[in-house]
Amino acid sequence: MTNALYGEMLTKIEAQISHLDFPESPKNLYDPIRYIMSLGGKRVRPVLALMGCQLYGAPYSKALPQAMAIELFHNFTLMHDDVMDSADVRRALPTVHIKWNHNIALLSGDAMMVMAYRHLFNCETSISQSLGGLFSKTAIEVCEGQQLDMDYAIQADVTIEQYLEMIRLKTAVLLSGSLKIGAVVGGADPKKLDLIDQFAEAVGLAFQVKDDFLDAFGGEEFGKATGGDIIEGKRTWLTLKSLAVADAKTRVELMEAFDVKEPTERVSRVLAIYKRLRIDELAEAEVKKYSMQAKEALDQIQGEARAKEALEWLVDQLIGRRT
Amino acid sequence: MTNALYGEMLTKIEAQISHLDFPESPKNLYDPIRYIMSLGGKRVRPVLALMGCQLYGAPYSKALPQAMAIELFHNFTLMHDDVMDSADVRRALPTVHIKWNHNIALLSGDAMMVMAYRHLFNCETSISQSLGGLFSKTAIEVCEGQQLDMDYAIQADVTIEQYLEMIRLKTAVLLSGSLKIGAVVGGADPKKLDLIDQFAEAVGLAFQVKDDFLDAFGGEEFGKATGGDIIEGKRTWLTLKSLAVADAKTRVELMEAFDVKEPTERVSRVLAIYKRLRIDELAEAEVKKYSMQAKEALDQIQGEARAKEALEWLVDQLIGRRT
Repeated sequence: MTNALYGEMLTKIEAQISHLDFPESPKNLYDPIRYIMSLGGKRVRPVLALMGCQLYGAPYSKALPQAMAIELFHNFTLMHDDVMDSADVRRALPTVHIKWNHNIALLSGDAMMVMAYRHLFNCETSISQSLGGLFSKTAIEVCEGQQLDMDYAIQADVTIEQYLEMIRLKTAVLLSGSLKIGAVVGGADPKKLDLIDQFAEAVGLAFQVKDDFLDAFGGEEFGKATGGDIIEGKRTWLTLKSLAVADAKTRVELMEAFDVKEPTERVSRVLAIYKRLRIDELAEAEVKKYSMQAKEALDQIQGEARAKEALEWLVDQLIGRRT
Repeated sequence: MTNALYGEMLTKIEAQISHLDFPESPKNLYDPIRYIMSLGGKRVRPVLALMGCQLYGAPYSKALPQAMAIELFHNFTLMHDDVMDSADVRRALPTVHIKWNHNIALLSGDAMMVMAYRHLFNCETSISQSLGGLFSKTAIEVCEGQQLDMDYAIQADVTIEQYLEMIRLKTAVLLSGSLKIGAVVGGADPKKLDLIDQFAEAVGLAFQVKDDFLDAFGGEEFGKATGGDIIEGKRTWLTLKSLAVADAKTRVELMEAFDVKEPTERVSRVLAIYKRLRIDELAEAEVKKYSMQAKEALDQIQGEARAKEALEWLVDQLIGRRT
């Protein structure tokens, strides 16, 4: 079942993306931007901007330029993150630094960020400074989150609090920023957006813990590939929670399980320990906790009814009703 | 002999840079920014922003936040260009990707660009949109210039017009943008900045041709290292002009001279051909042409006297009185 307003917004956003007007030359600067923007996706962030706008009573189409700014920024982060992570594939197609080269991915990404700001400023003069401030604060926090992610990948001891703060910066603040930017376009007072922050950051955290959970346990129910994170040796909420709740002997056992060479064997041994520690249940409880926080914040927001309903529906899609 | 106003502005800018307030954490994100900003330099671009402001009758200190925005942006381009050019050294010290690593240079550069925008918006609300637009247009053109520079490095046939357009984008527009941003802070109408454009772009082109000239011929007069561009096999205004004016036989001779393995021999053979073609005289005439264009544009700008005088002085420093 889909939500009519979400569907309508998504159609508008795809149309707007396909009409983005990039110069023809230099081809090596603009072709990669056209390419990555055409790869598709759920377009959650630009949709959130439109919802934020309608939530405050303005027609959502008023925030289309800012929705483009946010989607350009998001894809800029993907282009640069793929370089940093040496990722070869995105949405089943070669990443920009593979299809072109590293320098082109670097420079096209830079240009995308500037283009994001250009779209952002397509607004009433009176709000351009607020939008610039909100957008920049969000962008710098996303950079901080990515740096922490790289730092933690080679750091021996990472606490679950550090992991959640990294996720908040890397993922949640952009969801929140998207809604807030839309809200300001819609007429909200930029100083009164705390509830939106609480709502969107809770959604972001719930989404990430759920994502970690599904990567490990989702396969059983949905036939999804199971254990990708375990195979990559990636520390997730599940790993960090296990290390936090396990006794010394089990901690050693978990480390040893992660060191098993054969992937299938590694996954089954790690999952067995997770289950013994009831990490699956703890993860579901954590998702539920954040979902409740998100719902409570949303309930307090006095907003346009259809937009609120669409937001609730979107949260269910992102986090899942069952938890 | 120095200019008092320039000296005063430079002192203010250095003080402002040393007071830039970067967060402590993540260290790997902010330490490289502190590092590259502390490497020094002539700070021509932020000084131009202050001069632009005073030119329109406002106290130059009003444009200090925008001067910081421009210097942060300029250093962001240096950080990323050093990655793209695999440059190991900047101002006799290791570049960021050498001192840290490529990923850190990439991400710190991204963060610097966002910080540049944050400083830019530290202005009256009524001009934030104009500043954002001017700054973004400048930034995207600098990206285009860098892309053309990379494209031309591996392209067999580059015309002198293409080279000059690349230089205009890569260098001249940021000089122009700096002055214009300062001018808008000082109260100029953003739509009436054509003369500043003409002035600053002519200065940028004169500066680059002069720089190419000095690299080849400067050594004789100033004891500077001679022929670095020739040793690197870099195409400059001198090379392209030679190819444009030479007959077929001399063109072949020039290509052969560039293919000589031994560096000293290569430099002396290329220089001999340049001189035979009187490329040194043509370069000096070209610099003179742009200098005149710059002077004519500046003469037409109705601006505050001390700022105009300081600008004239700065142009002399950049391009040199002798030409």
